[in-house]
Amino acid sequence: MSERSSIPLDQLARLHPADLADQLQRLETEEAQHLLLQLPRPLAARVVDEVEDEQVGELVEKFSPTQLAELVEELPPDAAADLMGELAPRKRRDTLAALPPEKASPIRALLSYPEDTAGGIMSDRFISLRAHHTIQQCQELLRAMPEQRPEDVSYLYVTDDESRLVGVVSIRDLVFRRPERVLGEIMNREVRWVRVDGDQEEIARQFEHYHYLGLPVLDRQGRLVGVVRASDAIHVAQAEATEDMQLMVGLSGEERALTPWRKSIGKRLPWLYVNLATAFLAAGVVGIFESTIAKWTALAIFLPIVAGQGGNAGMQTLTVIIRDMALGELSPGDGRKAFFKEFVLALINGLAVGLVVGTVGYLWKGDIRLGLVAGSAMVLNQLAAAMSGVLIPFGLKFFNVDPALASSIFVTTVTDVAGFFFFLGLAALAMKWAGF
Amino acid sequence: MSERSSIPLDQLARLHPADLADQLQRLETEEAQHLLLQLPRPLAARVVDEVEDEQVGELVEKFSPTQLAELVEELPPDAAADLMGELAPRKRRDTLAALPPEKASPIRALLSYPEDTAGGIMSDRFISLRAHHTIQQCQELLRAMPEQRPEDVSYLYVTDDESRLVGVVSIRDLVFRRPERVLGEIMNREVRWVRVDGDQEEIARQFEHYHYLGLPVLDRQGRLVGVVRASDAIHVAQAEATEDMQLMVGLSGEERALTPWRKSIGKRLPWLYVNLATAFLAAGVVGIFESTIAKWTALAIFLPIVAGQGGNAGMQTLTVIIRDMALGELSPGDGRKAFFKEFVLALINGLAVGLVVGTVGYLWKGDIRLGLVAGSAMVLNQLAAAMSGVLIPFGLKFFNVDPALASSIFVTTVTDVAGFFFFLGLAALAMKWAGF
Repeated sequence: MSERSSIPLDQLARLHPADLADQLQRLETEEAQHLLLQLPRPLAARVVDEVEDEQVGELVEKFSPTQLAELVEELPPDAAADLMGELAPRKRRDTLAALPPEKASPIRALLSYPEDTAGGIMSDRFISLRAHHTIQQCQELLRAMPEQRPEDVSYLYVTDDESRLVGVVSIRDLVFRRPERVLGEIMNREVRWVRVDGDQEEIARQFEHYHYLGLPVLDRQGRLVGVVRASDAIHVAQAEATEDMQLMVGLSGEERALTPWRKSIGKRLPWLYVNLATAFLAAGVVGIFESTIAKWTALAIFLPIVAGQGGNAGMQTLTVIIRDMALGELSPGDGRKAFFKEFVLALINGLAVGLVVGTVGYLWKGDIRLGLVAGSAMVLNQLAAAMSGVLIPFGLKFFNVDPALASSIFVTTVTDVAGFFFFLGLAALAMKWAGF
Repeated sequence: MSERSSIPLDQLARLHPADLADQLQRLETEEAQHLLLQLPRPLAARVVDEVEDEQVGELVEKFSPTQLAELVEELPPDAAADLMGELAPRKRRDTLAALPPEKASPIRALLSYPEDTAGGIMSDRFISLRAHHTIQQCQELLRAMPEQRPEDVSYLYVTDDESRLVGVVSIRDLVFRRPERVLGEIMNREVRWVRVDGDQEEIARQFEHYHYLGLPVLDRQGRLVGVVRASDAIHVAQAEATEDMQLMVGLSGEERALTPWRKSIGKRLPWLYVNLATAFLAAGVVGIFESTIAKWTALAIFLPIVAGQGGNAGMQTLTVIIRDMALGELSPGDGRKAFFKEFVLALINGLAVGLVVGTVGYLWKGDIRLGLVAGSAMVLNQLAAAMSGVLIPFGLKFFNVDPALASSIFVTTVTDVAGFFFFLGLAALAMKWAGF
């Protein structure tokens, strides 16, 4: 499946690094490595910065620590730390050793934070000033600073002697305010900030909720250690949504449509086996009633309907709950309200669906008992679907597991098992009463 | 289920408008309306701006056009247009009529763009300057401008005599560059922009991909008409992910865990009926083989396993494809590659699962034929799952329908129908050969 890149190097070099990274990710690994080594070092570094985290490790696998160090030197420390985080521990050590100490030390500091926290996504490049500076002085200070990628600056932070954050000045204040004003007077003292170990998902929510461009990150002593930017938050929001969708249906780790199948097997097959185990549970319930089915084969025809309707209703409830949890819109106590709502909804939907299924059952097989059994089982199964759709994600969350984790597999297990049990159990009772 | 707000008004007024909006959305509508009328008008306006679009219409339903006009006057035009878009046409007309003409006309202009386009999410507040201005002149011009919410400004746009965009200057350039420089010299001429009718989902992707803080919006003549901000893009990214997740399982329109059940029924029940119709298809296939099952009841036990495994595998494939489509990571031609990958994966997963199912079938019922039939059906059903998981979203897209739309319902229909057909069909053949 190898394909030669048909675009000449000088044309590639004119692309935006993010687009070049996209091209690179479509090539076979060896070819991508080869291409990367041909690019001017600063461009190569910016491209590596844009490659998805899951792929970057493989991309630079063949690079020597010296080659890696050359690349890393061109990167801002946060991007360098992201790259280093994907290397094997041994190679990471060797690469850090190959770097000049003043480059290595901020990278080491950033590497100490877990990936999914504020510390893991923040940039350590920010501008901090003192409260006694005037606007004029700030402008001079900033103009004298060595090259800055200006896109990265949205706010100026005002810190005290111990680097503790005391206020924030929009960089636009520097333009809009009069030059003689002192920062201490115009700064906003009610700064919103996040702790360095704050959860990245929660931070993405805050960006959306409060429309931030950037959020300062403080350590336990209240010292300013970094800044999270809006574009990082969009990335987190997208990645978390992907993860939730995939976790729900049993996919571990982010998978893409073109992830090589060798890798995909490891993400999917284990969950297919989990699903198989739970399917055997459902089959076991059917097995209990094998003699009932033997006497009344028409029941078998309704099994897919029972399973299908329960599964779909359960997925509806589950999806709403999981997404609300992810967006942080469920406060404590909302679980009970949601449960109550789903119960009412399931009762009504169950009656609406049960009526149709019951009527069809009667008309198709000319058997009123089949209609009654199928219809009632439908109502009960909708209730089971609603309850499991609420309780399973809340239960997973209670045990500190991601509420999305394989939850669709668990919910459909409940709806299959409960559905078959209600349906075949009622059928067995009906047969007994009617004296088959 | 009514709950009195226990927080006194003066405490509420101290909250961030976004948090106050959250509180408001938890109250019964009448109470929320009452509270809103008690707030100082400017604060009330900012709160309304933060209420979710779906809820804002109901919230201001009882307000008179005059009350609405007072509220709208305090809002920036883009927020005002969002609010007006949620009103009934008659009330919208009356409210626009109650506004001073200079307030009404920009709102009318914004209302003309569809909600899900750049025009629908952009702000019309931006600063445009001319190429011959010096940094110094810009600073003076900006300082003389009437009150601006500074958070909304990230870039300055340079336009020509016909309002056409010719360049962009980061507002930070005003700080970092020397005062005598002319904008025409320092501006970036390669401006990335979007067309006013550009799709909002595509725009959110660009923000994430290129790390923008803001993107200019141009009309067909290349004139600058607005700006999309990063925080709008996060909102779009979150909302689109929610919509895709919900559409997949058959939920029309964004539903939240605490959406009243009366509203939720309309979003869910129609899809439950669609699912029911497709479940009858699957039941019909089982019905064709009723006599086979009558003779070999053990087959019924394996129906949930066939349906469950096919459904789960189909959902895995579907989720990966839908998400990649939403994130814009599938180029034309990638469909074939994805199809091929899924085929290989399904073959391997099918063999792995089929082997287990076949062995269990044999051990459980002591019947080698059951094992062979179940195992082979499993392999075939995994292939059907993979193919439908790719073809259904691509097919929906081809017909210009959202590829997520109820796709899990369609995929599980295919896996149920194909799975039962393979399984029961093979069983019937086996019985014929073995001469039952």
